[in-house]
This record gives sequence, structure tokens and C-alpha cells, in this order.
Amino acid sequence: MEFPRVTPPDQQTHRAAVARHESLTKPTGSLGRLEELGVWVAACQGACPPRPFARPQVVVFAGDHGIAGNGVSAYPAEVTRQMVGTFLSGGAAVNVLASSAGAAVRVVDIAVDADEDDTPPVVTRHKVRRSSGRIDVEDALSQPEVDAALAAGIAIADEEVDRGADLLVAGDMGIGNTTAAAVLIAALTGTEPVAVVGRGTGIDDATWMRKTAAIRDALRRARPVVADPVELLRVSGGADLAAMAGFLAQAAVRRTPAILDGVAAGAAAMVAEELAPGARQWWLAGHRSVEPAHDVVLEHLELVPVLDLQLRLGEGSGAVAALPLLQMAASVLAEMATFGDAGVSGPTGEAVQPR
Amino acid sequence: MEFPRVTPPDQQTHRAAVARHESLTKPTGSLGRLEELGVWVAACQGACPPRPFARPQVVVFAGDHGIAGNGVSAYPAEVTRQMVGTFLSGGAAVNVLASSAGAAVRVVDIAVDADEDDTPPVVTRHKVRRSSGRIDVEDALSQPEVDAALAAGIAIADEEVDRGADLLVAGDMGIGNTTAAAVLIAALTGTEPVAVVGRGTGIDDATWMRKTAAIRDALRRARPVVADPVELLRVSGGADLAAMAGFLAQAAVRRTPAILDGVAAGAAAMVAEELAPGARQWWLAGHRSVEPAHDVVLEHLELVPVLDLQLRLGEGSGAVAALPLLQMAASVLAEMATFGDAGVSGPTGEAVQPR
Repeated sequence: MEFPRVTPPDQQTHRAAVARHESLTKPTGSLGRLEELGVWVAACQGACPPRPFARPQVVVFAGDHGIAGNGVSAYPAEVTRQMVGTFLSGGAAVNVLASSAGAAVRVVDIAVDADEDDTPPVVTRHKVRRSSGRIDVEDALSQPEVDAALAAGIAIADEEVDRGADLLVAGDMGIGNTTAAAVLIAALTGTEPVAVVGRGTGIDDATWMRKTAAIRDALRRARPVVADPVELLRVSGGADLAAMAGFLAQAAVRRTPAILDGVAAGAAAMVAEELAPGARQWWLAGHRSVEPAHDVVLEHLELVPVLDLQLRLGEGSGAVAALPLLQMAASVLAEMATFGDAGVSGPTGEAVQPR
Repeated sequence: MEFPRVTPPDQQTHRAAVARHESLTKPTGSLGRLEELGVWVAACQGACPPRPFARPQVVVFAGDHGIAGNGVSAYPAEVTRQMVGTFLSGGAAVNVLASSAGAAVRVVDIAVDADEDDTPPVVTRHKVRRSSGRIDVEDALSQPEVDAALAAGIAIADEEVDRGADLLVAGDMGIGNTTAAAVLIAALTGTEPVAVVGRGTGIDDATWMRKTAAIRDALRRARPVVADPVELLRVSGGADLAAMAGFLAQAAVRRTPAILDGVAAGAAAMVAEELAPGARQWWLAGHRSVEPAHDVVLEHLELVPVLDLQLRLGEGSGAVAALPLLQMAASVLAEMATFGDAGVSGPTGEAVQPR
């Protein structure tokens, strides 16, 4: 799997946006992180002032994980299939948050453990298999399957960008996915299982112990292949995580910014950065999850989250929650008056002539 | 100054909203702070599910401070007057943020050091005086003036609620206002000047020293009157801070939630809580400012900020930045499917019948 080289956001526009902030009717730096976010949006768009995003698109990657059979989740695996229906009817959390933030939601069945006949073809078009393998004892995917999953993620990113999406969010849905994500994160960073195991959907102590054991066993299979990101996804990831990795890498290749969500998207992003170095420059960390492995992701990718609201849902929810702040950051650069426009005195007290 | 007793948000609705969260298609608690915010909105509205706010209203209280003459700010005092014009033309940061968040902005001249003839009557209708006194050596206000300023804030809250506002934000604009705010905060909490002095608009070290000295001298005049909140506003506050205090207290009296901004609104809120005990139950801390005195406010009022984005602008900007998250929190309770609606299995794995 060879990705084209990722080029960074436009540095000349970055400088122009920093300079524009100094001309706006506020003390320089007084909007803190909102100023940085606006500069990043401008650099990604190559336009100063930037435009608020017109077509933000969430894609929820649904997939089951054989490891769920080890009893690592508070919920049964059939919830993944049921939630696909909830995404389609608009009743899931990410639907509601996206509606409030002005984003569209698409759900794709990458590896749900359900018959395709139950689901509209538009959802299953990129399906790779039913569930991924039980990663503590077997490979998650075959070689053709991991290739197909990565290709699906790339194709979906291309489809959305070609249809006009100007901002992407990768959401996840899959019982057991935080276990597989924790394995990828631990493998890529040399972290011990207990430092990456989290409460996921809200598990009790006995489930936590099963999950920790599953991560430990899966890590024994992951560590020998950690130098090859595709092989890591094949052995220890899963089709949904592979598709998300392809999607996030391709977003960067297409010079389209993306907001990251929690631990599943974060694990996929870490692999995507291995696949397409520099891709992380096109990503914003929407929030800091309560999952401990997410801190490992943020540190590894050197991303500073916008929100810290104790979210742990996935679905892209924490990314979408940050979207209004990103829109505000773009609007500030696009719409605020300059000292010159407004005839407001600068910090020296010198009168500034209206332009 | 006697405020009617503040009654708390509706506790029965609070319990109903907590219960509703458990029925929605997500692991309980997985939306973290967004769940708490939704419950608070429901309790404030006395309605479960709550409605997203239809008429959020920002009121910017503009006023000058004699202490600005001590050289405590990076900006000259005429900026206050100039910025009133910028608010009216829609070019200030809070205008842009409010527009993005769906809130309206009103600016009122409470004590701007400018001739009323320069400003539309609707802005100056509640004006108390030109600038407040130099609080290191004289009283900020006379007794009739502090009464008029408090009455103005109360009247403005009533006007907005009577016109249909369902959420209020008190914004501030005034060169020197963080100095007066720091004095109120230090006086009410027994804090030393160096622990409350901040960089305001972005001051240099020499200005910081002048500001610290001004706070120290003003505190000598404030401490003897700290037991009487109106007298504290009169001696050491200012007309804009007094009006904001009246506004925030009256919001609670009118059972209308308010989002607090930074250190100026925070100082006013602390006094408002003294005037109308329990009012803080109707307030949300929109963000944590970089001004050190703001941490003192948040701890004193036992409020946990939603955002931490290194903002230090005022104008209500940090409150408005949090508004989309509050809307999302309300939407989650109002629009998400329940496990029963969606036919999604709960954590026990038991099938849940569609209703």
C-alpha cells in the first residue's frame, strides 16, 4: 500500500492568517485557541480569510470484532447491527450532534456481523466481511481483506471529497472496537496493556480483567509485525479500523481537513500517519476522551484536543462536538472588522484611519 | 437592594432528564459533560426533554473606569467608545461568534466616557454616568448611581426575558474593567493582589506593576465594605459591573439560565450571588479564562467551566463559544432515539421491544 506523499497545509496562507488576526478589533491572542484554529483552517483551505465549512461530512465505519466473543464489552455484538439502523433513521447521538452542528452523516457497513440483505446496498457497498477475526488467537483479516478495507476507506474519502465535502470526520461503531484499538495503540507506542485498557461502553471489573487479558494476548501477536502498518492492521486491527486508517490518510492526500474523535479513530489515525507520514497536519483532535489509550494517541500524534468533556461514546461524537468551535474560528477571520475598518485605536493609542 | 428569593431549577425535571439519558441509544454516561448540561437545561426549563434555546441573547455592558487613567491597560480609554460602534456595526468578536451560534447581541452604554449624542438613544437609555470613579483614591459611584446601575441591569434582564429571550449572556466592554473586577474578586475572597492581577488586554511588565499597585490601593478601600455587596459595587466596582450584577441576579429571579464569560462577568456574578443567594444555580461557566482571578471566581461559585481555550477577550465571547455545546446537549435529550424506539439491545443483552 503506497500513499502519495502528503503535502502540508499552505504555509504562506498560515502566515497571512496570523497577520490578519493582528489587524482584527481585539487584543492579539485574546481569542486563544480559537485564533490558532482559524489559522489552521485558513492554511488547510489555502485561503485567508478562510470560509466556514459548507459541507462537513461524518462517515461512521461500522464493524464487528471477534474479540467481542471474549466478553470484553458491556453490550452484546448484535448492538452493532442494530445501531446501523439507528444511524440510518437519524436517532443516534452522532446524528443529533451533527444535525445541530450542520454536518451530514453517512454510515458504512465495513464488517458488521449481519446479513447484507438486512441493510440498504448503499451502506454495504464497501463491506469486506462479517466481523473481523478474534485477534487474541487469530488474524483479524486476510491479506485481500485488509487491502479491500484500506481501499474502501480511500474510496469513501474520495467519494465524499468529490461530492464537495470540505471537512471529514471518521466515526466508529462496533462492539469490541476499543479492545482492537488499544492493541494497535499499545503496539505502536510500546505501551503495556494496563495503560491502554479503558472502560469502553462502561464495563465492570470482571469484564475489565477479560479485556486486559485479551489485549495482552493480542499484543503478543501484534508486536512482531508492528513495523509494517498494513500487516499490523491485518493481524491485530480489523476491517473497520483499516478502512478508517485509509479514509484519514486519503483525507490528507486530498488536502481535506479532518476532525478526529476518540480512541478508535485515534488508533486508525496512528496507523494512517505511518501509512502517509505528515497526514496528521490535516487533522484536528476534537476532544480528549476518558479512555486512557486516547492520551497515548494524542501524545504520539502531538495533537492538542479542543474539548475535554469526558466523552467516551465514539461514532464521531467528540469530533462533531468540536465542529462549531472550528466554524467560529473560521468566522472570526472571515467576518470580524479590522482596526482600520472600525476606526478603533490600536494598543499604542494611535488613531487608525478607516480604510 | 432586596432581590426576591431565588428558587432553584426544577428538581423533578432534573430527575426525569437523568432517567431519560439512561433510555437513549448510548451507554449511560458516555456523553459525559454533555449529559450533565442537558439535564441542567431541562431543569432550568422545567421540561424534559428540553428545547434547544430559541432566543439566546447577549447583552454587552460598556463602561469606562477612572482607574484606566493609572495606565493599567495596553489600550487607551477611547477604545471603549469606539468598540460600542463596532458592536453596533456587527464587526466585534462577540458579534461574529454570536452570529455563528445563533444568538443576538445588544450593547448598552452604562458608563462609557463619551457624549451621549454620539450614540443611538437605544444604547444610552440606561446610561448612569460618564466613566466610573478612580477606585484607588475615590468611590466608583455615588449612592444614587449604584442604585441606578443595579436597576438598569434588572430592567435590561426583564426587557430581554419579556421579549422572549430564553438564555442570557452578560458581556463586558471597558478599558480598565479587569482591574476593577480583580478588586471585587480579591475583596470577596480575601485574596492578595498578586494572585488576581492578570495581563488583561495583553499588558507589559511595567503596566502589570501599575495594575498591581492600583489593585492593592483599591483593595484598601474595598475591604472595609465587603460585607455589603451594594456598598462594595459603589466604592470599588463601577456602573457596568453593578449593572451586570443586577442583570445576572435578575436572570435567576426570572428563572432564565445564563452563561458566564470571563473575569468581568465573573466578578459581577460573585456580587450577584451575594445579592440573590442561589442565583449561581442558574448560571453555567462557559469557559476558563487565562486571567488568574477567574479561577478564584470559578472556585468560589463552585462552577466547572465547559471550555478551556485560553480566551481573555471578554465581550461575552467565552460564553457564546460554549453555546453550541449547550444546544447540542439539549438536542441529545430532545432528539435521540431510545433503546425502545430503536429496538437496540441494552447492556444486559436483553432485547428491548420497540414502543
